[in-house]
Amino acid sequence: MRAEILTIGDELLRGEIVDSNKAFLSDRLFGLDIETRFHVSVGDDPRDMEDAFRRAAGRSDVVLVSGGLGPTRDDLTIEVLARTFGRSLQVDQASLEGIKAFFARFGREMAPNNAKQANFPQGAEVLPNPIGTAPGCLLEESGTLFFCMPGVPRELHQMMDEQVLPRIAERLAGAEGRPVVRTALLRTFGIGESNLDAELADIAREGGVSLSFRTAFPDNYLRPVARGATASEAEAKLARVCDAIRERLGPLVYGTDAESMEEVVGKLLREQGKTLAVAESCTGGLVGERITAVPGSSDYFLGGVVAYADRMKAALLGVPESLLLKYGAVSEPVALAMAEGARERFGADLAVSTTGIAGPGGGSEAKPVGLVWVGFSGGDENAAQMFEFPLDRSRHRMATAQVALDWVRRALLGEERVALRYLRRSR
Amino acid sequence: MRAEILTIGDELLRGEIVDSNKAFLSDRLFGLDIETRFHVSVGDDPRDMEDAFRRAAGRSDVVLVSGGLGPTRDDLTIEVLARTFGRSLQVDQASLEGIKAFFARFGREMAPNNAKQANFPQGAEVLPNPIGTAPGCLLEESGTLFFCMPGVPRELHQMMDEQVLPRIAERLAGAEGRPVVRTALLRTFGIGESNLDAELADIAREGGVSLSFRTAFPDNYLRPVARGATASEAEAKLARVCDAIRERLGPLVYGTDAESMEEVVGKLLREQGKTLAVAESCTGGLVGERITAVPGSSDYFLGGVVAYADRMKAALLGVPESLLLKYGAVSEPVALAMAEGARERFGADLAVSTTGIAGPGGGSEAKPVGLVWVGFSGGDENAAQMFEFPLDRSRHRMATAQVALDWVRRALLGEERVALRYLRRSR
Repeated sequence: MRAEILTIGDELLRGEIVDSNKAFLSDRLFGLDIETRFHVSVGDDPRDMEDAFRRAAGRSDVVLVSGGLGPTRDDLTIEVLARTFGRSLQVDQASLEGIKAFFARFGREMAPNNAKQANFPQGAEVLPNPIGTAPGCLLEESGTLFFCMPGVPRELHQMMDEQVLPRIAERLAGAEGRPVVRTALLRTFGIGESNLDAELADIAREGGVSLSFRTAFPDNYLRPVARGATASEAEAKLARVCDAIRERLGPLVYGTDAESMEEVVGKLLREQGKTLAVAESCTGGLVGERITAVPGSSDYFLGGVVAYADRMKAALLGVPESLLLKYGAVSEPVALAMAEGARERFGADLAVSTTGIAGPGGGSEAKPVGLVWVGFSGGDENAAQMFEFPLDRSRHRMATAQVALDWVRRALLGEERVALRYLRRSR
Repeated sequence: MRAEILTIGDELLRGEIVDSNKAFLSDRLFGLDIETRFHVSVGDDPRDMEDAFRRAAGRSDVVLVSGGLGPTRDDLTIEVLARTFGRSLQVDQASLEGIKAFFARFGREMAPNNAKQANFPQGAEVLPNPIGTAPGCLLEESGTLFFCMPGVPRELHQMMDEQVLPRIAERLAGAEGRPVVRTALLRTFGIGESNLDAELADIAREGGVSLSFRTAFPDNYLRPVARGATASEAEAKLARVCDAIRERLGPLVYGTDAESMEEVVGKLLREQGKTLAVAESCTGGLVGERITAVPGSSDYFLGGVVAYADRMKAALLGVPESLLLKYGAVSEPVALAMAEGARERFGADLAVSTTGIAGPGGGSEAKPVGLVWVGFSGGDENAAQMFEFPLDRSRHRMATAQVALDWVRRALLGEERVALRYLRRSR
């Protein structure tokens, strides 16, 4: 089954928005083991749209169309699709009632424009949109399935998952001899893509799964794809390989699917009834920002100090001025004293600290840009560790924050502290 | 001039990454008044690539190609482009030396694979890439210009701006009767898109410019596009309209082009020799993170306290416990005391604070999710202001941080404090 994605809208072609719908749709198709061959976008020009529809019909089995279902003059997807394949437009009464009801819920009357959203090409199947005014549709034309969906991401996501994917899966199930596919996503931090590949090649081979990699800085994601004659065969294969990967990589795997590092850390803190505080210098608030991005984080996060000026490290965290003078702010004793100071002042069970040179200025021969110390204080462990991230300012801070969060995670799991195998370069 | 953008890579078609290169390239072309007609992506399949090249040659004047210039087996853009149009591949000695020198700078030897990055189709002009190993090229084929660029965004951006856009502009300048185009980007905060449109319609009309809008939450951007028979005519028109817009909108315009709010605030603080501290609750570190994202911010940013737990507002910022008990953490007196406490404890000239309910939990009848107080202390001004942002957690925090930074900016400019005309909804 060859798939193509066609997104429609002038705003895409003017570069006003980054089109994330295509990646979403392709990722979902990939989950069904369907290869997307083409991504195409055209503006609201009927000739370009017609041309794109014709071309897609000639080369693809499934075409996912997004955008152009709105009520305005520019929204022409349905009209042009019908014309392209010589179909008339017909009003779908159920959709028309649905649109009226949608407005009624918000105490408004339906504008006349919106009525056109209930028109569909003759022979199309209507796909309901419970969270918006634009229903979608499925039109089959000479063996090619055209699924038309709204461009609004929320509405698109729901329609794709609830209406489109099940219909595609049904067609696939009918295809003789086609294997069932199951996939997973494992998130790793602290190991590079080529090392992952080398470490896991035998597991993938022996388990009969394919393994793909994706860098999502500073993480690397693993996606095993298992195929089987039946669902249970594919699922069993996938589970075996995921277990083997986790055993091989140990704490390098921190989460699955959409689970972020800060969510994993928050979950462990809540389970263990422990509290956290942070002391940030070079990350400037990023560690706190990430922890508090998780709803309910006030249950375990007490707060932090952003001690950007050196004298604030002394005044607010109790770092002895003698240490600052003797070793400098970017040093093991200061990182340690910052973590201990935060733990004590907040009365927290655990604390982490960051102090480094994110650049581009501020480096020296002895302490080059990229150098960073991360400190930790919790239980019986009081320690600081040095890293060198020869990266730009933004990625230096991202890597540093991830190391700090990962240290908390590993401490809560009773694992060894993080030892980065790809970010730390020899000099 | 009709433009088309073609991005190449299996990772795009599998939905592993959101392709932001297309929006970047279209936005840059739009700045030269060039319409992008098509966005196309294909995987690393030579047949699909060849087909896309041929089709682009038949319908577009300029084709921007991104991706597939790397050293691996999958990187086939140059090879397939040459074959499609019957050109041989030729080694560019200068590029080969450049690639070797690039590796030498990192103390490594060039891998044999990398040599292929110095191959170009016969007749192509090589476009240097000073920050990566893959040079680009320009190939003219039957009147269509193919610009091949790397897929790595940093390298793509630099090559587009330094190599590609000047060459396109040169061709445009030669086109008879074509107007010269000049554009600007004005960043606004605190006014909605439809209000902007209504307020500025007469200026655009009378100034003879077109005006487009783009929402970049929580900001709205304005892009005036001026056309003239000569460069000086277009520039004069643009300058007149920009001046009129600034006069009409006053401090609602905070910056131009890529200038972020935190950069504008940093510049003002540095010019006026003033220092800043922050006290954050609901933003959790986001305000500090944004301020310190600007290189050199240690010149004016002293630091902050993330007082997430209420008792920390008392312990670390000196907020009287009686205020917390009487009014609650999300209140005018507490926001004010947080700002005053931060200003005093850090010894800063100015301080801002945030305390609100970002949700989804934690709201009540009297204090619903979305409510937030922002406090300010600086010079003779000590005040707090309430906002209601009925948004999701992430956007609630983004809006709050922007209000806090904007208050600092307005105070430094001697302007009235921000009064949001679109975020604050009546209840």
